[in-house]
Amino acid sequence: MDDQQIMKQALELARSAAGQTSPNPLVGSVIIKDGRIIGMGAHLKAGQAHAEIHALNMADTEARGADLYVTLEPCSHHGRTGPCADAIIKAGIRRVVVAVLDPNPLVSGQGIQKLENAGVIVETGVCEQEAAELNRMFFTFIRKNRPFVTLKHAITLDGKIAVYGGRSEKITGPEVQRDVHKLRLLHDAILVGAQTIALDNPRLTNRFAGSPKQPIRVILDRHLRIPIESHVIQVPDAPTWIIVGSQADIDSRGTFPDHVRILQLDTPDVEIAAALELLAEQKVLSVLVEGGQKINTAFLKSGQVDEVATYIAPIILGGEGTVSVFGDLQTSSASNGIRLETQKVERLGTDLKIISTLKE
Amino acid sequence: MDDQQIMKQALELARSAAGQTSPNPLVGSVIIKDGRIIGMGAHLKAGQAHAEIHALNMADTEARGADLYVTLEPCSHHGRTGPCADAIIKAGIRRVVVAVLDPNPLVSGQGIQKLENAGVIVETGVCEQEAAELNRMFFTFIRKNRPFVTLKHAITLDGKIAVYGGRSEKITGPEVQRDVHKLRLLHDAILVGAQTIALDNPRLTNRFAGSPKQPIRVILDRHLRIPIESHVIQVPDAPTWIIVGSQADIDSRGTFPDHVRILQLDTPDVEIAAALELLAEQKVLSVLVEGGQKINTAFLKSGQVDEVATYIAPIILGGEGTVSVFGDLQTSSASNGIRLETQKVERLGTDLKIISTLKE
Repeated sequence: MDDQQIMKQALELARSAAGQTSPNPLVGSVIIKDGRIIGMGAHLKAGQAHAEIHALNMADTEARGADLYVTLEPCSHHGRTGPCADAIIKAGIRRVVVAVLDPNPLVSGQGIQKLENAGVIVETGVCEQEAAELNRMFFTFIRKNRPFVTLKHAITLDGKIAVYGGRSEKITGPEVQRDVHKLRLLHDAILVGAQTIALDNPRLTNRFAGSPKQPIRVILDRHLRIPIESHVIQVPDAPTWIIVGSQADIDSRGTFPDHVRILQLDTPDVEIAAALELLAEQKVLSVLVEGGQKINTAFLKSGQVDEVATYIAPIILGGEGTVSVFGDLQTSSASNGIRLETQKVERLGTDLKIISTLKE
Repeated sequence: MDDQQIMKQALELARSAAGQTSPNPLVGSVIIKDGRIIGMGAHLKAGQAHAEIHALNMADTEARGADLYVTLEPCSHHGRTGPCADAIIKAGIRRVVVAVLDPNPLVSGQGIQKLENAGVIVETGVCEQEAAELNRMFFTFIRKNRPFVTLKHAITLDGKIAVYGGRSEKITGPEVQRDVHKLRLLHDAILVGAQTIALDNPRLTNRFAGSPKQPIRVILDRHLRIPIESHVIQVPDAPTWIIVGSQADIDSRGTFPDHVRILQLDTPDVEIAAALELLAEQKVLSVLVEGGQKINTAFLKSGQVDEVATYIAPIILGGEGTVSVFGDLQTSSASNGIRLETQKVERLGTDLKIISTLKE
């Protein structure tokens, strides 16, 4: 096995904990001695042991003179757990192979420095792109100081959302429903506008079988007009955070159930940037936007979108009396439209899923 | 080799002549004796020998006692060439394997009957679906007595055609351009509305390298208002047929170049059904509709569409001040939208191609 193959195993270990480590990144580690795996581990939950520590524990005294592979630079600082670099040195590891450096500019490279100072051979950049991609939400959060934003929508082949008489109709099949629940699992929060709550009254819970967590339900509601009888208020299956503007009359709404928090901005409008900043302060690393046309458009206009998940149903609704997935973006020619890069195309039953990123 | 494998070879032979046999179908034939191929052929051009005749010529006297595979039922009638069933009997073929019967109810089964009456063993239905699919244009023409209609359009991810100030902008990449030229090659005619000619002035020729034919350029132009300086009138690279309504003042337009034909309907409007009927009379088996929103919508409303080719560029243009790919289809809920079946999804460079058929 070469370095790449072993690192891919470590990446697989990391990936297995997807959706359960936030606000920490996904990390996997493998220890090899004489061509044999003697330890492996993954970071499973914030506050618990890092991947390298699990792997070192498994290897026990065999770790002396072995090679340790890890998908993210070992930490050098005392956080909730001791620094991994120290543990690696203490275990007598001969060589460390790292996929990608810590994205935080304040500590990036320090773990490697510490290892090298102690005489450990260090190699970096093995499967670097794949490792960065795996933790794209965490990396975005650290680098941009705001949550990673995924815009999700289900449209017809002619770009319409099936909204008739104000209410949205389901157009995609069961495979898409399952996929959306997986997508929810991968995000810390789901975000919609107050209008979606008032009209569609969704539960916004993750009903994927055996789901280990429920994302926070975030509602943008400038005037705090959310109906008290809506599911997100009445059903406490997941936390509900309502972001309101500075002029919302909170007192007059009385008491909400315990799972509901009201977060007030200091501007009358609920600007996307301000809402995301507030969520970042609360350690929300990723947000899945499941809004209607208004919220979709506001996010695209703000430029604060990282990924677009488009589900396309094989239906044509026609252009009049129907609702386009996005509102006005003030394009005056195709060249000033919003350019995307298609990352993945997948058929889900009779529907199609397209994952795109915004072109920088 | 079993029957299926041999028939797949015959289908490959047939497919190799795609785009050059109209108004005849694509047909391939293989002759096997003692597990060895002794003859093969494909129908290459209307008026020339049928596939079975080419294969029998190649097999020569070896054909006696051999098995002949053919993708479409051998003909029993005297057309432009002699009946193939007679030639097969005369050559002493022992067994004939047929993929699919002749779609014309007036002659379907007669070729097989003739062979069986002469003591030839006949088996049918081997790779039947694939064979019907290969000649779907021919089959549609025979069964519905109108050309096979493919609706082609290039849209953004949010279902817009990039039309600003009346003119369309190109949004797809070079791979799509090449694919469209291949698509043109497979159709007998390309159809657009007079408005597309007036605004975009396209050439509508097949500029695919080494192209063996140019489809007929069909323009729906109720009042015969097409500008005389447009490319389709000035450039004689392909025939141009202009379909006009009964009240069009043909005489006042003077003389058009030789490659231009004016076809007048007996109704004032140019109805889709009437235009297709007229094209069917002229032995046009297939039409690629490359119109703008108006023509696209008229075809969808008429219900006379067989295949939809959707090219999607990774761009978002937004919903206001932009043009949806289809106009009003009078849908009042998602359930009365036009339902499609996705047949094929393909990535072409940065763009996407989706081939759908209309759900019956």
